[in-house]
Amino acid sequence: MAKNSSQGWDVPAVEAVRVTPDTRVSGVDTRGTPGFVGDKELGEKLLEERGAYLSSLQEKLYANGRSEHEHRSVLLVLQGMDTAGKGGMVRHVIGHVDPQGVDHASFGVPTAEEKRHHYLWRIRKALPRNGQIGVFDRSHYEDVLVVRVHNLVPPAEWEPRYDEINHFERELVDAGTTLVKVAMFVSLDEQKERLAERLDRPDKHWKYNPGDVTERGYWPKYQEAYQAMLDRTSTDYAPWHVVPCDRKWYSRLAVTELLIDALERLDLDWPPANFDIEVEKARLAQS
Amino acid sequence: MAKNSSQGWDVPAVEAVRVTPDTRVSGVDTRGTPGFVGDKELGEKLLEERGAYLSSLQEKLYANGRSEHEHRSVLLVLQGMDTAGKGGMVRHVIGHVDPQGVDHASFGVPTAEEKRHHYLWRIRKALPRNGQIGVFDRSHYEDVLVVRVHNLVPPAEWEPRYDEINHFERELVDAGTTLVKVAMFVSLDEQKERLAERLDRPDKHWKYNPGDVTERGYWPKYQEAYQAMLDRTSTDYAPWHVVPCDRKWYSRLAVTELLIDALERLDLDWPPANFDIEVEKARLAQS
Repeated sequence: MAKNSSQGWDVPAVEAVRVTPDTRVSGVDTRGTPGFVGDKELGEKLLEERGAYLSSLQEKLYANGRSEHEHRSVLLVLQGMDTAGKGGMVRHVIGHVDPQGVDHASFGVPTAEEKRHHYLWRIRKALPRNGQIGVFDRSHYEDVLVVRVHNLVPPAEWEPRYDEINHFERELVDAGTTLVKVAMFVSLDEQKERLAERLDRPDKHWKYNPGDVTERGYWPKYQEAYQAMLDRTSTDYAPWHVVPCDRKWYSRLAVTELLIDALERLDLDWPPANFDIEVEKARLAQS
Repeated sequence: MAKNSSQGWDVPAVEAVRVTPDTRVSGVDTRGTPGFVGDKELGEKLLEERGAYLSSLQEKLYANGRSEHEHRSVLLVLQGMDTAGKGGMVRHVIGHVDPQGVDHASFGVPTAEEKRHHYLWRIRKALPRNGQIGVFDRSHYEDVLVVRVHNLVPPAEWEPRYDEINHFERELVDAGTTLVKVAMFVSLDEQKERLAERLDRPDKHWKYNPGDVTERGYWPKYQEAYQAMLDRTSTDYAPWHVVPCDRKWYSRLAVTELLIDALERLDLDWPPANFDIEVEKARLAQS
């Protein structure tokens, strides 16, 4: 468990990728490794070490979650264009922690039932339980991204959602959830290569969706929608992070660091015994 | 990915631990390593290799689960006395596979709402989705174990549950779920050591429950209840496996092998493309 996070980084990940008012989606270097000065080999080595450390922090969160006085959880929100690597992020980052401590949910095209409800209805149902790390593979932000790009509802309906989402997230934070919001960016070229690989390899056909090619035609509109999302929903209590994803090893290491930072800031200790230790030792000895 | 399962085993795990009509709970050697002739070092090495292979099989199950024509899933049912290592089993065995492909549920003392329903109500709600590996940390078998030991309901009520559970599981199997039922056994002495460790280490206090010591007084009644469970609910379509758990490395390796066997028997291939590959290549090239 490497507690020292400085190796390989000249700027901590959490600072290097945090959105600022100056962040421009069109200016993101998707092949970049913001803050990290090591190479791929070091990055992959660190991912294992820091993943183990993340796992130890997660166990403390889980332990505390079993106490009725604790109401803390962490929610990783992953948004990104197709092929950005959301699935791989779950497998290779969240895969380091105990499956019992993970509440995973993915949000695709809403079902008929979901469409009959407010867009936050399905989100609220999937929020992490106390002591859990929640993972949203896509999220409520779909409702200001794909919905905005295709005007699935009129602008008068999606426009107020930015403020509504900010209020919703404020509520989550007040209730004890730390949000880690990650916008994952690949380039149009890199996406093309990844889609081509899915078409070339029979073991990847199941990941291919013809609709993904259609969406490529809307790239500028998506960039606009992502920009509005970052501008309007990156708050001090729930900031966005922009993670370049052409290099998978970098994006996975960066998100591992974001989660570690979130958990370290909770400053958790092992929960105290809620029983008399000496009494229990005596009972056990006699049992 | 070691596909060869024979290394270290002189009898395949699935045969070595499968319950037979002659299985006696009182006769289980909890320090034993049935079928395995290697040592701990080999066992731990194999756990990593076979875990990676399990993960590759799970990905195929998941891929197939996304097709609407497939209705297959695997459900690992873990039952065992306190400290048998159910949590560690999830962490170290299920931890090898993609978190997205796992539907985990644990069943403690029923909530007030659960008590107002049939005992299978909460179980049915937690069944794995298509393509998922479900994990039950405790299960519907609590209703013929702790319930029977403490007569939480009258015998006339728990007695018919054995048949009812068999029907329920038949239904699951017919619907495409492969059940892997594992009864985990530790000795009374080993349990005492593990509970003592929880009392000694502040980072383990949260795992300690004074009720666990109380339950030790009911050991013979639990053995009787486990025996009845094995005798009456080990069926050809959903057999029980008895896994000795004093040596954690063995129990984890054995359950990894049981899951591999279950997945291999599904004989899954990658799902075929549901689109025209050449058409899509042309569309992608032009996008």
